[in-house]
Amino acid sequence: MSSAAAGAKDAAPAELQGIRAAGGRELTALLDRADRRLAQIAEGHGRALGRHATQTLSAGGKRLRPTLVFLCGGAAAGEGDGLLRAGVAVELVHTATLVHDDVLDRAALRRGHPTVYSTGGREAATATGDLLFSRAFAELAATGAAESVTALSSASSALAHGELMQRADAWSGSVTIDRYLERCRLKTARLFEAACRLGALLGAPGAAAAERLGSYGDRIGLAFQIFDDVLDVSGPTERTGKARGTDLLDGTVTLPLIVARERDPALRSLDLRSAVTEPAAAEAVCDRIAATGALDAARKRALAFVAEAKRELDGIALDHRSRHALDLVADGVVERYS
Amino acid sequence: MSSAAAGAKDAAPAELQGIRAAGGRELTALLDRADRRLAQIAEGHGRALGRHATQTLSAGGKRLRPTLVFLCGGAAAGEGDGLLRAGVAVELVHTATLVHDDVLDRAALRRGHPTVYSTGGREAATATGDLLFSRAFAELAATGAAESVTALSSASSALAHGELMQRADAWSGSVTIDRYLERCRLKTARLFEAACRLGALLGAPGAAAAERLGSYGDRIGLAFQIFDDVLDVSGPTERTGKARGTDLLDGTVTLPLIVARERDPALRSLDLRSAVTEPAAAEAVCDRIAATGALDAARKRALAFVAEAKRELDGIALDHRSRHALDLVADGVVERYS
Repeated sequence: MSSAAAGAKDAAPAELQGIRAAGGRELTALLDRADRRLAQIAEGHGRALGRHATQTLSAGGKRLRPTLVFLCGGAAAGEGDGLLRAGVAVELVHTATLVHDDVLDRAALRRGHPTVYSTGGREAATATGDLLFSRAFAELAATGAAESVTALSSASSALAHGELMQRADAWSGSVTIDRYLERCRLKTARLFEAACRLGALLGAPGAAAAERLGSYGDRIGLAFQIFDDVLDVSGPTERTGKARGTDLLDGTVTLPLIVARERDPALRSLDLRSAVTEPAAAEAVCDRIAATGALDAARKRALAFVAEAKRELDGIALDHRSRHALDLVADGVVERYS
Repeated sequence: MSSAAAGAKDAAPAELQGIRAAGGRELTALLDRADRRLAQIAEGHGRALGRHATQTLSAGGKRLRPTLVFLCGGAAAGEGDGLLRAGVAVELVHTATLVHDDVLDRAALRRGHPTVYSTGGREAATATGDLLFSRAFAELAATGAAESVTALSSASSALAHGELMQRADAWSGSVTIDRYLERCRLKTARLFEAACRLGALLGAPGAAAAERLGSYGDRIGLAFQIFDDVLDVSGPTERTGKARGTDLLDGTVTLPLIVARERDPALRSLDLRSAVTEPAAAEAVCDRIAATGALDAARKRALAFVAEAKRELDGIALDHRSRHALDLVADGVVERYS
């Protein structure tokens, strides 16, 4: 569960290239401007901070959330500063949570680069995360659209709420699918939803389309998180860059385990906290989960959300190119490493 | 330096009562509404979070920053929701930084109550802080005043920037007074300034008075921090509730030490990192700093900022009662425990 929120595996390069090609020059131009603006923000805060923030903001994120903002805003329509600011703001919130996650996980590397935590320590990383949060709202406030600040702060509250829920449910034997989905929504989908909603509000579609585009974002966010949780069980390590079963080691109960528990009494009676204390045990439980067919069941759920997401796009007056790219994004979230 | 930012010693009860009496029923009513709104926000985020956030938000802060918002808004004029939201937002940002500070300091108690860190752990405390940040901006966005979101996010960025600066300067032998003041401004004064500016923008004085009221806030913030740093050296412990010399143990170079270094060659050549590693050594250095007369010099600087702050109030069309209360606030920041 940590990995999607942690963004280590945002849409893979191949899919991303397809999406960018579909989005056209306008999307590429906005993403380039977003990169420059993020670098500018990082450098605008003194030397000490600049070093930390730059390394974080430029460490090769896939910019999936800004891409959603721009496409939902109708990037092909070539719209300007409001969309740019929203894309930057959403990426800043996302990055802020990554920086704080790295402190909590004591992570040395992120996307192959040293984390702020590893180079600057706990204090610097906590402060850098706080700063990126603050800058996100500054960026968005400058659009003058109070509604957009509300949308982002609501999503940002949800992220924190989801993190707390994940802690509260750790090692639980009684997490239901509904509760799991609620957690996915808070931890992941709400920021996707906000990205799409902001795109609509500040771009060509306008407030009338914000509900449906937000709903599209919610569904692909859920699919993204479910698929991420599947990858944590299925591996293989060389594709995801992580050991299998890290969620199990953290006590994070995800959909594959919930489904597998329904199917395998031995898993149902397994106490994660005492039984899964080192990587080899986690891998063995992963194999056992896979043997129940729970991974396919989880993938099916993710695909159903993708289908729902794409249906939400019907009937929205969106330029053909953005629409096509949004379909590709929806497909992309469950096609990673498959 | 940590203590003012950590807010452990916001204006003492005696002064506070005077300020509240001067502010009248309108101020008291707004502060009561702010307390209720903060409790509501804490409870509005699920059980797990509610527990953590409630304990933090209701743990007896002195509400100095909301008081500034309300008084600068002309609380006596009895104005409504905009001021209330701004007061709540500023307190939320302040509390968020306290919650994160407690994680970094591994602090068990805050204002005599268990910290979120001690009852919920690192993850819960980090997430709770993030959530309080997010809620602050949601609260302010609802005023519809983009300029106020910008003011708060700028102050909130400054807090984080100041924290990073403090880390960068730790144990340094070459911190100048100017650099120290810049750090005080970032870590403490900018949020005071934002509180006053928000009061002006959303209250009776209006944008025309925002500059001067902001400047008043900046000056009392500086005085507040300097005085706090003096208290860390002067004690006595039973008054401040903290051991003397905690800043020295953290490597935080404050005004008393900077001035004392100029006057005492032995202090100038002292390497804090190797020489001050336990409380008794810190107390001995405190005594040595006090012997140079540096505490009086620092207090004088703080008083000069108080005088500047009060001068800023001249010529602003503020009701008599709010003006009188703001004078008391200015005096109060350097009269704590004296």
